[in-house]
Amino acid sequence: MRFNCAELEKFVQKIFQAGNVPAAGAKALAEVLVKTDMRGVFSHGVVRSARYLDCIRAGGIHPDAALKTIAETPASFRFDAAGGLGIPASLEAVDRLIERAKTLPIAVATINHSDHFGAAGYYALRCADAGLIGFAMSNTCPLMAPTNGATARIGNNPFAYAAPAGKKYRAVLFDICMSTVACGKIAIAAAEKKPIPFGWMLDKEGRPTDDPQWCFDGGVLLPFGGHKGYGLAMMVEILTGALGGAGMLSGVNSWNTVPGRDADTGHAFLAINPEFFGGLAEFERRMEAMIDEIVTSPKAPGCDRILYPGELEFERERRAVETGLELPEASVAELKRAAELTGLAFETEKLAFRR
Amino acid sequence: MRFNCAELEKFVQKIFQAGNVPAAGAKALAEVLVKTDMRGVFSHGVVRSARYLDCIRAGGIHPDAALKTIAETPASFRFDAAGGLGIPASLEAVDRLIERAKTLPIAVATINHSDHFGAAGYYALRCADAGLIGFAMSNTCPLMAPTNGATARIGNNPFAYAAPAGKKYRAVLFDICMSTVACGKIAIAAAEKKPIPFGWMLDKEGRPTDDPQWCFDGGVLLPFGGHKGYGLAMMVEILTGALGGAGMLSGVNSWNTVPGRDADTGHAFLAINPEFFGGLAEFERRMEAMIDEIVTSPKAPGCDRILYPGELEFERERRAVETGLELPEASVAELKRAAELTGLAFETEKLAFRR
Repeated sequence: MRFNCAELEKFVQKIFQAGNVPAAGAKALAEVLVKTDMRGVFSHGVVRSARYLDCIRAGGIHPDAALKTIAETPASFRFDAAGGLGIPASLEAVDRLIERAKTLPIAVATINHSDHFGAAGYYALRCADAGLIGFAMSNTCPLMAPTNGATARIGNNPFAYAAPAGKKYRAVLFDICMSTVACGKIAIAAAEKKPIPFGWMLDKEGRPTDDPQWCFDGGVLLPFGGHKGYGLAMMVEILTGALGGAGMLSGVNSWNTVPGRDADTGHAFLAINPEFFGGLAEFERRMEAMIDEIVTSPKAPGCDRILYPGELEFERERRAVETGLELPEASVAELKRAAELTGLAFETEKLAFRR
Repeated sequence: MRFNCAELEKFVQKIFQAGNVPAAGAKALAEVLVKTDMRGVFSHGVVRSARYLDCIRAGGIHPDAALKTIAETPASFRFDAAGGLGIPASLEAVDRLIERAKTLPIAVATINHSDHFGAAGYYALRCADAGLIGFAMSNTCPLMAPTNGATARIGNNPFAYAAPAGKKYRAVLFDICMSTVACGKIAIAAAEKKPIPFGWMLDKEGRPTDDPQWCFDGGVLLPFGGHKGYGLAMMVEILTGALGGAGMLSGVNSWNTVPGRDADTGHAFLAINPEFFGGLAEFERRMEAMIDEIVTSPKAPGCDRILYPGELEFERERRAVETGLELPEASVAELKRAAELTGLAFETEKLAFRR
């Protein structure tokens, strides 16, 4: 079905409030999850809402935890999410970081003792929309083998950046994880009984495989680009786990498979202010010129478009506002489950998009 | 032949001084190039020395340019290399950045109007050896096609980071470029008349190819990991070109193929100080625990070792000091050419390693 974005956001907030999340946190969750769906990143949108509630019910996430400041200077924060929800903690942290970076060339924040923070790109773009270059990253429970390893030892550690690009392009927005593909894509191949390319996964014994079935049987993801993806995952682990003081590697638990256990996830955020480097207007002019040159360059045979990072997300976001948000079945199903878990009615009529 | 590292460094300094580079700049070049060879990164060591001299002679690099400060705050610098050598400019910039970051949680520096800066990892590790997490990056002339593009529009933009890891491991050191492989590797395949894997390169028309010969005939490199490598290259282009105010994309000229033209390359450096995040000692303890867990994890069949990023480089550096530095033929040849260009004798006896 097609959703009215504003109504959906209100509904998601209501669900989390009914799930014992304080109003501000529920609002943050609704804002981040729905905006992420609007950008087409359905894997990190409302499809996660019921699972967050599972974690709250199982005691793995404390819904009313407040973000604590462990240490701060004008240009830095070391936060502790106190076992609470990752999204409200991250949104508060990023907004405080943005406030600081507005008057400084650069600022940095870490969060430890947190949980899943949704889509990294959301926080990076929030910085860019405030005129800053933003970076956001998180470690995760171990999912990938290091180069030459046979078992999962490091997360696929998402990393995002965004930079303001002026009116014509809004921003460059880039959001990746460090595995060649996410588990979900391998599960789809398994359902379709199709082989996967070598390089995506190792089997239970650490051997290269093209059989997607291993994703249910102890197989392990591989970093993208071999040692390059491994080293980038380690960069994120260093900034979140080692610098932020969160769980590291096997010290990070899976909120997704063991909802009752404290995840101890770590996040890190950076913001750079172009005002201290020639000014925002000049920076945006340069960004626009850069994007112009790339997207108008000759296309490869069979390709009709060269995209700049984030272009598709911005198009989808506009379309979701103008013509409603079409959610995949799995997202609707999990949203309905979240409503059931909190005893709320799923009011299809009210949520539906109308011109 | 095996070189005595200290003697080699003195000799390289002498060469650059004879090539009209002031003493401090020549010393910086010798230090960075020889240390890079000692770490086994021969592609960015003394093999480049003669080409830098070619650029100086052709007027593309001003050997006596001094680093200018365009703007600064306690936590930031915007530098202008004034058309000079990239290595002395970068070394001076990083040392000034380190000095600032010693008393701040984070600091950033950009350099514009520069040239080739050697191995990015050198500057990152210099930060790590000073107790800081360091980042170093540079744009380059266009070498890669953006995703769906047919022609070279963006550099393969090297990016490095390093983090102090305590006595046992020294540091994590990671240094990559954003193409699947460097041109040099494709040239080797061409010489051996071996096909290259699809995904390394496009032919002159922008079609996927396994023929390495295209690297001499207008072929174009591809980013590693598809859109992921493209987006990471753009991150570097944004921080160096757009933020630093250097040339961007086609505005960066190749020092390597057109030595007489101003390259207008941009660099960016960041340093984060763990003292503001629980202290350096605690950070190093956590780094050591992280590396311990990774390198002792189960190995894939046929693999006898899991490395942490930088481990091989540190081993090679120690070995070069203890048993002499074995340079590849091409490096020795270019070093001899550099000596010839500046009228210096290549004193084999003096340069040779002796126990």
